[in-house]
Amino acid sequence: MNTMPNRSASSMNAAHAPQGVTLNDPFWSRYTDLVRDVVIPYQYEALHDRAPGAEPSGAVQNFRIAAGRAEGEYVGWVFQDSDVAKWLEAVGYSLQIQQDAELERRADELIELIEAAQHPDGYLNTYFTIKEPGRRWTNLTDCHELYCAGHMIEAAVAYYEATGKDRLLNVMKRMIDHIDTIFGCEEGQLRGYDGHQEIELALVKLYKLTGEERYLRLAAFFINERGQQPNFLLEEWERRGRRGHFNPNVQNHLDVAYFQAHQPVREQAEAVGHAVRAVYMYTAMADLARLTGDAELEAACRRLWHNVTRTQMYITGGIGSTHHGEAFTFDFDLPNDTIYAETCASIGLIFFAQRMLLLEPKAEYADVMERALYNNVLGSMAQDGKHYFYVNPLEVWPQACSCNPGKHHIKAERQAWFGCACCPPNVARLLSSLNRYIYTRRGDTLYTNLYIGSELTEEFGGVSMRIKQQAELPWSGRVRFDMESDEKATFSLALRVPGWCPEMTLFINGQPTAYTPEQLQDGYLLLERSWKGGDVIEVQLAMTASLVYADVRVRADNHKAAIQRGPLVYCAESADNGELIAALRLRQQAAFSERPAADLPDGTLVLEVPAYRSITEPSDTLYHTQAPRSEAVQLTAIPYFLWGNRGRGEMAVWLNAPSE
Amino acid sequence: MNTMPNRSASSMNAAHAPQGVTLNDPFWSRYTDLVRDVVIPYQYEALHDRAPGAEPSGAVQNFRIAAGRAEGEYVGWVFQDSDVAKWLEAVGYSLQIQQDAELERRADELIELIEAAQHPDGYLNTYFTIKEPGRRWTNLTDCHELYCAGHMIEAAVAYYEATGKDRLLNVMKRMIDHIDTIFGCEEGQLRGYDGHQEIELALVKLYKLTGEERYLRLAAFFINERGQQPNFLLEEWERRGRRGHFNPNVQNHLDVAYFQAHQPVREQAEAVGHAVRAVYMYTAMADLARLTGDAELEAACRRLWHNVTRTQMYITGGIGSTHHGEAFTFDFDLPNDTIYAETCASIGLIFFAQRMLLLEPKAEYADVMERALYNNVLGSMAQDGKHYFYVNPLEVWPQACSCNPGKHHIKAERQAWFGCACCPPNVARLLSSLNRYIYTRRGDTLYTNLYIGSELTEEFGGVSMRIKQQAELPWSGRVRFDMESDEKATFSLALRVPGWCPEMTLFINGQPTAYTPEQLQDGYLLLERSWKGGDVIEVQLAMTASLVYADVRVRADNHKAAIQRGPLVYCAESADNGELIAALRLRQQAAFSERPAADLPDGTLVLEVPAYRSITEPSDTLYHTQAPRSEAVQLTAIPYFLWGNRGRGEMAVWLNAPSE
Repeated sequence: MNTMPNRSASSMNAAHAPQGVTLNDPFWSRYTDLVRDVVIPYQYEALHDRAPGAEPSGAVQNFRIAAGRAEGEYVGWVFQDSDVAKWLEAVGYSLQIQQDAELERRADELIELIEAAQHPDGYLNTYFTIKEPGRRWTNLTDCHELYCAGHMIEAAVAYYEATGKDRLLNVMKRMIDHIDTIFGCEEGQLRGYDGHQEIELALVKLYKLTGEERYLRLAAFFINERGQQPNFLLEEWERRGRRGHFNPNVQNHLDVAYFQAHQPVREQAEAVGHAVRAVYMYTAMADLARLTGDAELEAACRRLWHNVTRTQMYITGGIGSTHHGEAFTFDFDLPNDTIYAETCASIGLIFFAQRMLLLEPKAEYADVMERALYNNVLGSMAQDGKHYFYVNPLEVWPQACSCNPGKHHIKAERQAWFGCACCPPNVARLLSSLNRYIYTRRGDTLYTNLYIGSELTEEFGGVSMRIKQQAELPWSGRVRFDMESDEKATFSLALRVPGWCPEMTLFINGQPTAYTPEQLQDGYLLLERSWKGGDVIEVQLAMTASLVYADVRVRADNHKAAIQRGPLVYCAESADNGELIAALRLRQQAAFSERPAADLPDGTLVLEVPAYRSITEPSDTLYHTQAPRSEAVQLTAIPYFLWGNRGRGEMAVWLNAPSE
Repeated sequence: MNTMPNRSASSMNAAHAPQGVTLNDPFWSRYTDLVRDVVIPYQYEALHDRAPGAEPSGAVQNFRIAAGRAEGEYVGWVFQDSDVAKWLEAVGYSLQIQQDAELERRADELIELIEAAQHPDGYLNTYFTIKEPGRRWTNLTDCHELYCAGHMIEAAVAYYEATGKDRLLNVMKRMIDHIDTIFGCEEGQLRGYDGHQEIELALVKLYKLTGEERYLRLAAFFINERGQQPNFLLEEWERRGRRGHFNPNVQNHLDVAYFQAHQPVREQAEAVGHAVRAVYMYTAMADLARLTGDAELEAACRRLWHNVTRTQMYITGGIGSTHHGEAFTFDFDLPNDTIYAETCASIGLIFFAQRMLLLEPKAEYADVMERALYNNVLGSMAQDGKHYFYVNPLEVWPQACSCNPGKHHIKAERQAWFGCACCPPNVARLLSSLNRYIYTRRGDTLYTNLYIGSELTEEFGGVSMRIKQQAELPWSGRVRFDMESDEKATFSLALRVPGWCPEMTLFINGQPTAYTPEQLQDGYLLLERSWKGGDVIEVQLAMTASLVYADVRVRADNHKAAIQRGPLVYCAESADNGELIAALRLRQQAAFSERPAADLPDGTLVLEVPAYRSITEPSDTLYHTQAPRSEAVQLTAIPYFLWGNRGRGEMAVWLNAPSE
């Protein structure tokens, strides 16, 4: 076990994600604007219990009560504080994109309130302050104290980066000083960790901001202790008399695999348990592997990445096959209609993918990042920014969602802010920090992971180069890079060849430019040369609609096909295809035609493809020997991320495939 | 509302099921023997907590404690008494088939114990006697007092019919006298009914045995009160402080539809709630409709029959689409892998079908009865008679049953006697009374509902005719009836033309005999003539394997087909077809070949049919644009009722169908 980070020069900062990227993209700016103009203000109201139609959050009121400025009962989940933190983190990112004095004033006011709720010893958590004073750190398994601290650290870092204001940062440094006295291997300290991983990745961010290694050491401590024997969570559970926070009855069994604490993390090979916890942990593991040069941890990250993305990931980038515990189940078990695929889990998968990209520049990580972003995550938010899916199904029959209890967790329409509101603020913080996911830099190579319009300035060999990317994704595959500099700079621009792209055409300064197989490395096309201002690189990514098939071991998708065009997975809805999507079957060698959508946001391309519809002849029995007849129809498919915006109806991603 | 039975001469006993039928059949006698030789003795041991590997039942011990002959705590469910009753009922039927002094001695001993547990006022229920004395009739919703009484009445009737002994009958008459004082429309009486219907159909049986109309009136009272306003169950729930027996916390909501008490029964048009409760109620409704000539009730029965069998019944005769509440969901919602299809519910459907046959001679009722019998019910019991399925899925992936919590209720192998042991004794009582389901008689027409080898003697116009049926079902479609009499008798022998039978060939006294469309009435071929001893009617039911398709509104079965041969639904198992049954697809116009099974009970025919297997080329991704290739294979299908007898493996009834 490697409890002390081994920070070697060779591994340290070998790669990083440039942060000074300005996003300016015809597709994505709409969403970052939406987050700034609608989501953040709406969520601010929701946190203050003023969002019409949404359940009261209690989150801000809890801080007021904890600060002694109001009286009342604690409201909401035990982790309600984290909603405030995620909002502040999103504000931090948003202010980095565009200053906003009023928003900053609101944030400062909240931060002042948070500081007032902090105890003199540094402790910060409104649940324990209000509801269970004296019982701090007695139920790490359920009560999310370190989780909430982690989110507040992320908020503090983002807000400091945006404003240079360190008030929240100092609050959280004092909290960590306190945590450092509680947790550790010394006599009287807890050799424990949180039931919900989050603080580990947050501590890495704080370390990167401050350079203080003790934050990295604390993150490594939590990661390394997890799953060791004797099992901390089991011992804690025994101390609590086998009673949980959420179920106060005495229980026979605590499933530590739910918390990924069933094995030391280095030995884990399969993604198990609560999906969000898992990917937050993997993210921190990948961070630590990179920053400490820990090969064993890196190998565990690769194994877990492989398990998640090769056997337990939906085509939309969703993870978590069951709503029981919002959890992974087992390899190739990907039911479409009883799915969970929580929005937060896909966001965590994006975090994990980004950290893996920093570990090693392989395009497959960016492929998954893009898949989750354009489909599961984007689809979770309504076009109004005020309604969200928590669960992101691949198959919906609205009546079943209402009338079959096994599908009650699936909603056919996006809901206003949830009682457990983890997803909406998580979407907000991801979308407002999207500029950080576009590039990674490793030495003199700049890797383009996402084709999203943006600008950044990087220095190569002392020369500053401004790189302006224009992209027309997801509707067209045209991408253009303009170099701006007064001097020449030698570096490699590495362009990702997306996994969905059968052909990528390259033009440099207007000239068609061939490339050799040697230039293709792990899914990136490396363009190494001495670049000068005025150089133009143009890329045309072939963007044709295709049928996509799952590995046959995925029982749920056998003899079915999905439609994908570029990064977008498509789906069929009743709004276009009538009832009984399941009765449709794609035709053999059917060509797709594209057309602009009339009833979806501007620019949306819908696909049409010849299909058959099965029709049962009127009969007096439910089962008959006569096969249904087939009627030729046009099937209309829309981007998955836009489903559920036109009223309640059926939806399916996986469609019956033509047979041989 | 019709609270008083209107017993008109025209409706009374218009039809009945002859009871003096002796079953002697190469296929079914094996099962009735199994019930007598293995199941009844095994269940006797189980009731006495002596069955190895099975959970202790406590059922007999509860009676000992209630009788003051033992000390201890009540063990088991609140309805544990009913297990003893169902066993006694099965014993009654079994003794009618074959005398057995030792078995009768055991039953007498138990009956003596039951009598000893009865209170002086007639009350009989070990749960309330031992555990909640003084709280009788305070929780009809949950506590099954009338349900247990109902089963004991059924046992008393069957045991009296077999042995002429009236000890248990008198016990139950005293119990009903007591119930009659508690329930009714008088001041101080409960205008209520049981949370679990059962006593209603039992009271009808008692009425038929005794001719005492007050039993019929009490049955009608329970049926008529159900679902009336103010709602008895809701009022009772309020009186209990909104606490349930199974969940002592205060609850916000009582779903009276679960108990089919959401509407007066005459207004009900859709099968809702707990499936067993529903079909037990429908059975009693059909009984009452027939015996009282209640046209409104008859119409309700027809509507509910239609709803169940046209929209909510699996091809195996299973009902109940969700394990949440073991319940119906809604029309055409028939998921195969999260199904419930409880054994008891199919047995209840058989009861309902038989009563509908008595209401009107339509072969569709017998079709459903046969479907449920040969598939869901027969499949629930292992060939050893000691292991049972409670849930009867149409699609099984064993790993999912273990690792996906939404499928934990589904077992890939039959289990020894359950903690909640309703199903095994229910199977035993059905199979040992199977002789009662073969025929119905209406006037001078004898309807043959099931082709099962048997003998009966009926009188027509004063002439006694012995009719001996020989049948080779389910493997061959040959059936033969021999008439034995010294005199001629004029009557109609109505032969059911099964819904699965495309062609029925008839020979009378060795001569091929054509029949006219006029002779076919509601699915029966009516052979009316003056029959004499020595007459031989032979029937050849075409029994070819066919593909069967579900109505396209059943989303789960779209583009799939099942295989049926005669009354048997077939399925594909891993034992024959390897893993990944979902990767198989039937070929177009593929012919079935039949062969005897090597590893299944003698006589079993397995089917082989050309198919394709999808194979994913080795790849490093879960999703790819390359379609899986197809490999030609032979698919082997075995009768559904024999699945799960050769170790854990995948199973599917619905197979991917060839496309046009």
